[in-house]
Amino acid sequence: MRSLRLYGPRDFRLCEEPIPQPDLGEVQIQIKSVGVCASDLHYYRDGKIGSNRVTDPIVIGHEASGVITALGEEVTGVQVGDRVAIEPGKPCMECDYCRSGHYNVCPGIPFFGTPPTDGCLRDYITWPASLVIKVPNSLSYDEIAMVEPLAVGIYAVELAGQMSGSTVIILGAGAIGLSVLQAAKLAGAQQVIVSEPVEARRKMALKLGADEVIDASSFKVKQAVMQITGNRGGDIIFECAGQDNTVREASQIARILGKVVIVGIPDEDDYTFEASAARRKQLSAIFVRRSNLTTEKAIKWAADGKVDVESYVTHHFPLEETAEAMELAMSKQDGIIRAVIRVNK
Amino acid sequence: MRSLRLYGPRDFRLCEEPIPQPDLGEVQIQIKSVGVCASDLHYYRDGKIGSNRVTDPIVIGHEASGVITALGEEVTGVQVGDRVAIEPGKPCMECDYCRSGHYNVCPGIPFFGTPPTDGCLRDYITWPASLVIKVPNSLSYDEIAMVEPLAVGIYAVELAGQMSGSTVIILGAGAIGLSVLQAAKLAGAQQVIVSEPVEARRKMALKLGADEVIDASSFKVKQAVMQITGNRGGDIIFECAGQDNTVREASQIARILGKVVIVGIPDEDDYTFEASAARRKQLSAIFVRRSNLTTEKAIKWAADGKVDVESYVTHHFPLEETAEAMELAMSKQDGIIRAVIRVNK
Amino acid sequence: MRSLRLYGPRDFRLCEEPIPQPDLGEVQIQIKSVGVCASDLHYYRDGKIGSNRVTDPIVIGHEASGVITALGEEVTGVQVGDRVAIEPGKPCMECDYCRSGHYNVCPGIPFFGTPPTDGCLRDYITWPASLVIKVPNSLSYDEIAMVEPLAVGIYAVELAGQMSGSTVIILGAGAIGLSVLQAAKLAGAQQVIVSEPVEARRKMALKLGADEVIDASSFKVKQAVMQITGNRGGDIIFECAGQDNTVREASQIARILGKVVIVGIPDEDDYTFEASAARRKQLSAIFVRRSNLTTEKAIKWAADGKVDVESYVTHHFPLEETAEAMELAMSKQDGIIRAVIRVNK
Amino acid sequence: MRSLRLYGPRDFRLCEEPIPQPDLGEVQIQIKSVGVCASDLHYYRDGKIGSNRVTDPIVIGHEASGVITALGEEVTGVQVGDRVAIEPGKPCMECDYCRSGHYNVCPGIPFFGTPPTDGCLRDYITWPASLVIKVPNSLSYDEIAMVEPLAVGIYAVELAGQMSGSTVIILGAGAIGLSVLQAAKLAGAQQVIVSEPVEARRKMALKLGADEVIDASSFKVKQAVMQITGNRGGDIIFECAGQDNTVREASQIARILGKVVIVGIPDEDDYTFEASAARRKQLSAIFVRRSNLTTEKAIKWAADGKVDVESYVTHHFPLEETAEAMELAMSKQDGIIRAVIRVNK
Repeated sequence: MRSLRLYGPRDFRLCEEPIPQPDLGEVQIQIKSVGVCASDLHYYRDGKIGSNRVTDPIVIGHEASGVITALGEEVTGVQVGDRVAIEPGKPCMECDYCRSGHYNVCPGIPFFGTPPTDGCLRDYITWPASLVIKVPNSLSYDEIAMVEPLAVGIYAVELAGQMSGSTVIILGAGAIGLSVLQAAKLAGAQQVIVSEPVEARRKMALKLGADEVIDASSFKVKQAVMQITGNRGGDIIFECAGQDNTVREASQIARILGKVVIVGIPDEDDYTFEASAARRKQLSAIFVRRSNLTTEKAIKWAADGKVDVESYVTHHFPLEETAEAMELAMSKQDGIIRAVIRVNK
Repeated sequence: MRSLRLYGPRDFRLCEEPIPQPDLGEVQIQIKSVGVCASDLHYYRDGKIGSNRVTDPIVIGHEASGVITALGEEVTGVQVGDRVAIEPGKPCMECDYCRSGHYNVCPGIPFFGTPPTDGCLRDYITWPASLVIKVPNSLSYDEIAMVEPLAVGIYAVELAGQMSGSTVIILGAGAIGLSVLQAAKLAGAQQVIVSEPVEARRKMALKLGADEVIDASSFKVKQAVMQITGNRGGDIIFECAGQDNTVREASQIARILGKVVIVGIPDEDDYTFEASAARRKQLSAIFVRRSNLTTEKAIKWAADGKVDVESYVTHHFPLEETAEAMELAMSKQDGIIRAVIRVNK
Repeated sequence: MRSLRLYGPRDFRLCEEPIPQPDLGEVQIQIKSVGVCASDLHYYRDGKIGSNRVTDPIVIGHEASGVITALGEEVTGVQVGDRVAIEPGKPCMECDYCRSGHYNVCPGIPFFGTPPTDGCLRDYITWPASLVIKVPNSLSYDEIAMVEPLAVGIYAVELAGQMSGSTVIILGAGAIGLSVLQAAKLAGAQQVIVSEPVEARRKMALKLGADEVIDASSFKVKQAVMQITGNRGGDIIFECAGQDNTVREASQIARILGKVVIVGIPDEDDYTFEASAARRKQLSAIFVRRSNLTTEKAIKWAADGKVDVESYVTHHFPLEETAEAMELAMSKQDGIIRAVIRVNK
Repeated sequence: MRSLRLYGPRDFRLCEEPIPQPDLGEVQIQIKSVGVCASDLHYYRDGKIGSNRVTDPIVIGHEASGVITALGEEVTGVQVGDRVAIEPGKPCMECDYCRSGHYNVCPGIPFFGTPPTDGCLRDYITWPASLVIKVPNSLSYDEIAMVEPLAVGIYAVELAGQMSGSTVIILGAGAIGLSVLQAAKLAGAQQVIVSEPVEARRKMALKLGADEVIDASSFKVKQAVMQITGNRGGDIIFECAGQDNTVREASQIARILGKVVIVGIPDEDDYTFEASAARRKQLSAIFVRRSNLTTEKAIKWAADGKVDVESYVTHHFPLEETAEAMELAMSKQDGIIRAVIRVNK
């Protein structure tokens, strides 16, 4: 089968490898669509995220959909031919965090495309049946691949707590920011303001329910927020941009006693708050790790039409053109939200 | 009466001013002891904290005790001769935050010694009777002055939430750190580790109940914490040092799903977390603003002997030698924890 | 002026009394509309609620709207001619609960129509200006009177916590239950099931957004809930019926780890849960006291058209026919939701 | 081996049965000590708890200690000869509640001595190795058997939330009430008041740290509480008595905004709150289901000497005299706290 390995920064190589066979309790999945996430871009461009470095050639990609092609022993509940979403992390089930239901922070969790665990930019994977979820036919493979970022957005909104009647501000309108947007509206946010430098993304935010958008490139974001909110600031700020100054910005535009929810991954390994703003307003903050137990809700909401993930997929590429997809995603040109690699059709 | 005004960085001038007379609902207080807080040092040395600048000459000092010397009209509940602790902030009682009981974040709150509100380094002040609390005779005026930092420590521990059985780590063992230490022990913290570069303060931490101390100057703090905690890290980290690197350190030594409570005020207007540590461990953080509704508990605990604030007062000075007190406090020499200015005896 | 006094069970007498004059900080209000609440019915029929007994003749009624007709000294922010909603409780502002922003549980709070505080079924009242809120012209006086029960429903939903994506069950579709319904939908409840014996109220519930209704009179409520929810039960149950068996029912139909929010006032002074259901499912419960700090949100949502309170007012009566209104309200006949007494037009 | 089966109310029969052999992942344990819990008494006397009825003859007993005597296949982490505490419930690990770490409310959980799952009043059991915890030699087998009720008390205190500086009232001073007492003191409860009709248990409560005790038989409990607390009531009330009136009492003696934590199991299947007290004070309540993830803390605290469980074991009996132990436990005579059946020595 084909397997796209990253040998170093910007060095993908298409390899021929044996098809993996499912072990006890596992299924074999033919990969269909794989979304290109910002964390993939970090590995592609820099060969690392923070202290996580690619040392051996790795297959990246973790926003994946596929179809079950074989079952290992003792697998129940799914069948060959099932169209599935895939939980990208395989928690150990034994540490204190797994035992208390916080699988996303399992310290030893293998996660697709995070060294040393191979991800989904290949024809076939094997994975525990318990981490594979059958999806209604109404969702396309591209949409199923978008379940993963949607689950992240839903999870961030859950962590933020009660937001009925609130003013929510989202910094960054990529697939994660747009997922936060849709989940926040469903959670009763009264006013959602999205700050984003790319025009096509601002338009998409408006299409998906934003009440106001701010041009983060030309505008003074703080000034715009204060004007929109009558100098009050936002109740809850979601930082989904991962830019060097966006955490500081979040601390400036939050209201007194506001919450800052950090989802983005910056280039430098720093999250820097404006100290006087954070302290005088007694802000609280939470740093979000991927998602936990929200995949089923994401599938349900996508299948019910409560959220639109189809719009995220603005571009698609065959496996051989993954590098082009990554470059386009980094450029943020051509109205791109998410590029999807159609590994198989 | 005497009034010590700060005209600029390191420029105290002793002035002769008229004794203020109490308005409706106010009392006149002869000031006894005033503690020298780190925020006083910021104004003394730099003429500012963050964006709060001294423009007109100001009287600083907010950790104060005194005796009531006159009553304004319609004052009930206190009498001339009462020995009192003083709430240093005067909330507006009308904003959304005051109305919901969060007086400490009232945006327009006048606070002793924060521009433009004169503080307590003078013979007499007037203040609303409702912000003055009669204190048992068992507490000395020096101890009463320490009620304010104790209330801050108690408040920080309240904000941290449930901590029975927890491992708590405190960065910095000044009066605030030591107050957090004592409040955390009373809240059931099982193991309290204190990291502090000054030996006299480490000794004081051990005297006041710390289970372990780490020399923050010579040791690798993270390495020491991981050794003590069996590589787990602390459940709750209190940053009470206000150093440039202590917030980053806090994010490194917190356990997975740990909490970071920021109390210290740094020189630069930044609180910088290590992004990968904060995100992978899904930390949460709260930035603490002074204290709220904890003064009565502070008085009660001090009077009951549950906490020891007497030990904080290692040095005392007359009003005329306040600059010497500030210099000594900044030097952290001579075993100093808190210097107290004995304005009147 | 006219004042309708309750001298004993079912004994209203229309009295002629002097018009009250506003004190310092108070306003005089001509009463327009007054809603008939279930608690009014308790006083009317039984002369008591729990241990609160009518001893001296009292004016009841607390869901009131009016127009300001005179200002006391030192009143700012409102003017003669302002159309206003009225907070029915006057918190002491000095107890621990007021100081921490929990005005609704102030133990000594005078509250309209709760002995010994006269309520609003009279031509004029006086009340502190700080408890009177100017309302947009788009709301009729009947609608303004409905702000009070709406604020109760909003408050109950706030206390229930995060409910995005949840299944909410409401027992009882009077004005409170319907307010909970609308607030729950705005807070992101995915599925709201309303159980109510009166057909007209079930229809109203459907009109105002209920996803499912259950006939509480003929149906087995538990059986119906289990069928609708696939044997799971509801995430959050709001008991707004105040019937003898509805708390028990709530404990039976809540899911494992579910929440029960008790808003209704029963005839007997008991709230009885099914012990084995409550314990095995580890339910939590909160007993709601009126409302707190939600009046402004209620006005905003009513004025913005996010909630419909106009539909609550199915009947209106002049002051002289208040007894007829009370009897009709008790009968639950003729499609009644809320009767409003139009004291003045 | 010997197995003590309950054939009906008060009908124990000592049977000879084959020794069970451990399956894959299981261990075989020789039972040492088994505590007699109030729930055992319900089955012994009534043949049921709530709707849970004994239909087929059953072995009861779930507070057990033992020694590992054989290992099934693929068992790691424990060895033959290990002295162990035993988690009495075997969660399914697949339902939503297990997956989110709430094992104690797993709806299908087999639990020792709850029909139809046989418990520990027999010579040998088999159980998954993952539910067996090796215990330090410093703890006797009687003490290890007390780990289970201690874990329940610790869990109830965890559910109650922050209690530093609080006044806690415990109704009932059996092994559960005494465990709550010790856990509450460790969590910083400032004042613990215990209400209990049996003098020996009041004495034990004082020995284990209660600040005040109330004679629940002769005294008016509410009156006594109000006297001790200056008419304020308790911040948190733990109902550990399971008497018909103790939930009502709890609602009467809680302060405004207080919490009621229900742990006891009553004879009738009702938990009845005083409606007006619960509503006017806006109480919250939680109904506790056994314990969750607190066994390790219980072992640690018992082994460290932070809690005293040795004192609970006032009586012991051989397996043949279990009925006598149950009768004595029901009588509450002779200073009994916990009777322990020493199945093997």
